[in-house]
Amino acid sequence: MKKINLGGVTTPLGFQSSAICTDIKGNNSAKKDFGLLVSDVPATVSATFTKNRVKAAPVIYDMNLLSEKDEFFGIVINSGNANACTGNQGLKNTETICQAFENKLQLDNKSLLMASTGVIGVQLPVDKMLNYVDEIVDELDDTDNNLAEAILTTDTVVKKSAYLVETGNGAFVVGGIAKGAGMIAPDMATMLAFITTDALVDKNIQDEVLRLAVEDSFNSITVDGDMSTNDSVFLFSNGMSGISVNHSKNLELFKEALKAVCLDLAKMIVKDGEGATKFVSINIKNAKNYEDAKKCAFKIANSPLCKTMFFGSDPNWGRLMATIGSAMIEFEENKVDIFFDDLKYVENGLLISDDLEDKAYEIMKKDSFVITIDLKAGNANKTVYTCDLSYDYVKINADYRT
Amino acid sequence: MKKINLGGVTTPLGFQSSAICTDIKGNNSAKKDFGLLVSDVPATVSATFTKNRVKAAPVIYDMNLLSEKDEFFGIVINSGNANACTGNQGLKNTETICQAFENKLQLDNKSLLMASTGVIGVQLPVDKMLNYVDEIVDELDDTDNNLAEAILTTDTVVKKSAYLVETGNGAFVVGGIAKGAGMIAPDMATMLAFITTDALVDKNIQDEVLRLAVEDSFNSITVDGDMSTNDSVFLFSNGMSGISVNHSKNLELFKEALKAVCLDLAKMIVKDGEGATKFVSINIKNAKNYEDAKKCAFKIANSPLCKTMFFGSDPNWGRLMATIGSAMIEFEENKVDIFFDDLKYVENGLLISDDLEDKAYEIMKKDSFVITIDLKAGNANKTVYTCDLSYDYVKINADYRT
Repeated sequence: MKKINLGGVTTPLGFQSSAICTDIKGNNSAKKDFGLLVSDVPATVSATFTKNRVKAAPVIYDMNLLSEKDEFFGIVINSGNANACTGNQGLKNTETICQAFENKLQLDNKSLLMASTGVIGVQLPVDKMLNYVDEIVDELDDTDNNLAEAILTTDTVVKKSAYLVETGNGAFVVGGIAKGAGMIAPDMATMLAFITTDALVDKNIQDEVLRLAVEDSFNSITVDGDMSTNDSVFLFSNGMSGISVNHSKNLELFKEALKAVCLDLAKMIVKDGEGATKFVSINIKNAKNYEDAKKCAFKIANSPLCKTMFFGSDPNWGRLMATIGSAMIEFEENKVDIFFDDLKYVENGLLISDDLEDKAYEIMKKDSFVITIDLKAGNANKTVYTCDLSYDYVKINADYRT
Repeated sequence: MKKINLGGVTTPLGFQSSAICTDIKGNNSAKKDFGLLVSDVPATVSATFTKNRVKAAPVIYDMNLLSEKDEFFGIVINSGNANACTGNQGLKNTETICQAFENKLQLDNKSLLMASTGVIGVQLPVDKMLNYVDEIVDELDDTDNNLAEAILTTDTVVKKSAYLVETGNGAFVVGGIAKGAGMIAPDMATMLAFITTDALVDKNIQDEVLRLAVEDSFNSITVDGDMSTNDSVFLFSNGMSGISVNHSKNLELFKEALKAVCLDLAKMIVKDGEGATKFVSINIKNAKNYEDAKKCAFKIANSPLCKTMFFGSDPNWGRLMATIGSAMIEFEENKVDIFFDDLKYVENGLLISDDLEDKAYEIMKKDSFVITIDLKAGNANKTVYTCDLSYDYVKINADYRT
């Protein structure tokens, strides 16, 4: 498996994309905000969506289509407007825009999906957007770099990743792009990821492989613990490499590549979290079961007290103990070990020595460090990735209108 | 029922307290940090404690004693050190200190309880503290104002409240003091409340009345959603007014007074929350059931996105909708109404008019406002009190050592 530099959704064979600026927010922005990803041939699609009960119109639209059929030609994507809390009009707008692209591309109705991200509670400027359909289709390109930009909201960097996988009988590629920023950004932006592959894979296998990859990547990160109305991850496989991954050996390679793309993108989202100055891995070891391990990791990763402590580089292990204690999991206080990177700081629930504080402080001052909690309550492990809570998080989220 | 100015734990008959500075933290602080509350006669004690699995030594000590007997003479209290994550030595230290006061007061062993608040993971300076036992006992006074100060950590104001209740056959008083700041403050401080009454009340009735009062007050507030190792609420009743509240009419008066004291103190804790600039009541109406109403209210009250929006006075109703949607409760998006104070802003899941934004902004600029969410999913209601998330919260919690 080889990481390909600058890869993205158009790296696998038979995928094209494009994106342009249409000023969807109406604030004379020059930012690209409207685009399209298409496959030359029908692609099998798997997707996971937000569990929020308030779902954006494109999420509802896509879930309906995916319950009817497995293959699509691509997806229309916009930023600047989430098309959430927009009622029936929002659903109609999604359909109108998809149909305009389907007509232009001479595809059947319901050949395209849609994803949106941006401000909530405002209808899409459909008429304005329709004016750009021809231009977007005309600019489709298999080396396009614009779509990865167009999906961003308060993100500060483009997020993409791709891997080339050699098999005994040829190679296939998995590539992806994502947007994040906050789990929810100032404009109620969302986490979106689009992944493509030219491997040939059956729908049911692909569904399961995506589910597993998402669990260990996009479902193992948190910026502020909030869950948006638009969170979605899509996987398009078009088989154009001619390499089937439905069989055991290739399937393992495919799983590995998909997981690597998802994890790369997920980590990029955390590193670019709103106001984030530090990337922190929370590593729970020897929990009673997986649920406990995950609950404990997320409790720490979402705790304002722990996150401000990361920001302040303060090895205040008492906050960690209290947070573990509030996670409602099975463990004994007097068995817990806590490490900052490789430095064992707490053993069996007690600080090993005051003398370690300076060393722990040096570790926490770094851009990136690992906190390991050994619960000694079983043998389940879980790692979750998070960032600190800084002044800038408050600034970004409090100041954008006033 | 009459509110008494400047009331506190020594307002009811037969209670005395005192507190002095012993520099428990060892940083040459002049702050009062060690004190005692006692009743002239044995008092019936009810208490509720943190549900955190990591419990401070005094919490474990008190829970053990309260499982053995109902009556105590009082409680020893210190700030500056939580005596949490201190193992067996922590428990021994609690016992040693209590016994020193019991000896000085010529009481039997196990006549006193103890509560601590402050930094975690550090043993109490027992020898130093024992030097002050005589002085604290000598200064006991039924008009003492020092104890309410001595229990504070990063709190900026003293919190106390008392009510005089007239009954057909005489009056009784309920008084209380509390500390808060953050749910967990920089030094891992905690929420503590001590309530006294000279009413005569049976243990089982008192337990239940306290449970109900705490549910609607201390269990209905949040600053940062974290739960500490030391959170405790104590109620001491010594019967010295001669007024029994075990019978229906007086019991209702007692319930009302206890609830009023708890709610006063709880609101003071939120208003004095770390970095808080605004007091926000989250009022959930017509949820399917009480659990849903409470879950929904706390989801909003703890959401960093919502709390920064309060700080920024931004009526970004989409964040509220998305947060309700992530609370995993039963409701339909297209039935939700949202109010800022009396201003109806969202009706049946949609913004009523862009023109209302300025009015909503004016409401949110105030020090205190109410957000009402009408779910129209049932008839259960719940109000929760919270504050905003400001730069100062981050500052207080990130900067204290570095």
